[in-house]
Amino acid sequence: GAPPAANDPMWGYFTAIAGQDGEVDAEELQRCLTQAGFTGSYSPFNLETCRVMIAMLDRDYTGKMGFNEFKELFTALSGWKQNFMMFDQDRSGTVEPHEMSQAINAMGYRVSPQVLNAIIKRYNKGGRIFFDDYVACCVKLRALTDSFRRRDSMQQGSVNFQYDDFILCTMAI
Amino acid sequence: GAPPAANDPMWGYFTAIAGQDGEVDAEELQRCLTQAGFTGSYSPFNLETCRVMIAMLDRDYTGKMGFNEFKELFTALSGWKQNFMMFDQDRSGTVEPHEMSQAINAMGYRVSPQVLNAIIKRYNKGGRIFFDDYVACCVKLRALTDSFRRRDSMQQGSVNFQYDDFILCTMAI
Repeated sequence: GAPPAANDPMWGYFTAIAGQDGEVDAEELQRCLTQAGFTGSYSPFNLETCRVMIAMLDRDYTGKMGFNEFKELFTALSGWKQNFMMFDQDRSGTVEPHEMSQAINAMGYRVSPQVLNAIIKRYNKGGRIFFDDYVACCVKLRALTDSFRRRDSMQQGSVNFQYDDFILCTMAI
Repeated sequence: GAPPAANDPMWGYFTAIAGQDGEVDAEELQRCLTQAGFTGSYSPFNLETCRVMIAMLDRDYTGKMGFNEFKELFTALSGWKQNFMMFDQDRSGTVEPHEMSQAINAMGYRVSPQVLNAIIKRYNKGGRIFFDDYVACCVKLRALTDSFRRRDSMQQGSVNFQYDDFILCTMAI
């Protein structure tokens, strides 16, 4: 029979991108996001960002995305795009460091000025932050915060990590 | 007077790469490593890997490298290149997943099969690991392990992280 998702308007789009194996890998996601205009230019969407996005959603550790993860990602991406455009007030396609700090605060993350500074140093190109790097930052911050919170069951703001678990949480993203 | 490094044979090379500001940023490092043939092909050395390498050595959080960090990086890169070639037994310019696991063990990291599996999922392209991704993996594993060990002063294999410190250690790399 038809797969349960066959009535979903995004199903045809997904299967076209996913190809024969029925899952989306990082290269396929890169082509898809570049063609969908998510970079705001002709340059390809950052492949590393695609890998990090897949790693974030890849609960079965296959390195690929099924249909539900793909839809989840598109929803998150649309939210980040809106957020980014709200802070990119001069419509340059990039945000400035202080706008990036505001955006991170607006998303509800409570981090120190030192952390904001380190994040901006890491994700800027020539003093500005492009959308694909912005997304890489959002994805990573969300995944790290989720990992931390899952372990901080008493909500004390601190977690005791074993070495192996620390590497597992941090190496794949 | 001349800078203290002026007698060093690498000083001229460094200043040519660093340009006017006297420090090497990620784009300058990418050009340098691509021209030096570190990718083993004409494709550019992964820019994300360059950013991670600079973040690892960037003790003053400027996002750039001075001369001493640059030399330190070249030493580390030469070591990783030798290591990579040792495991790339068919001289394909890539290593296979099981060779990658052996290499990580040979570097002295003690991680579980689950972690090795997650690392390989993250850094492979089409089932093989290229040199620039291999370096990204080595750099990140080293930086995370160093951060962990600095906090694990009693060498108990576990560390209590505050949220802000956890994000600081993990977001920039």
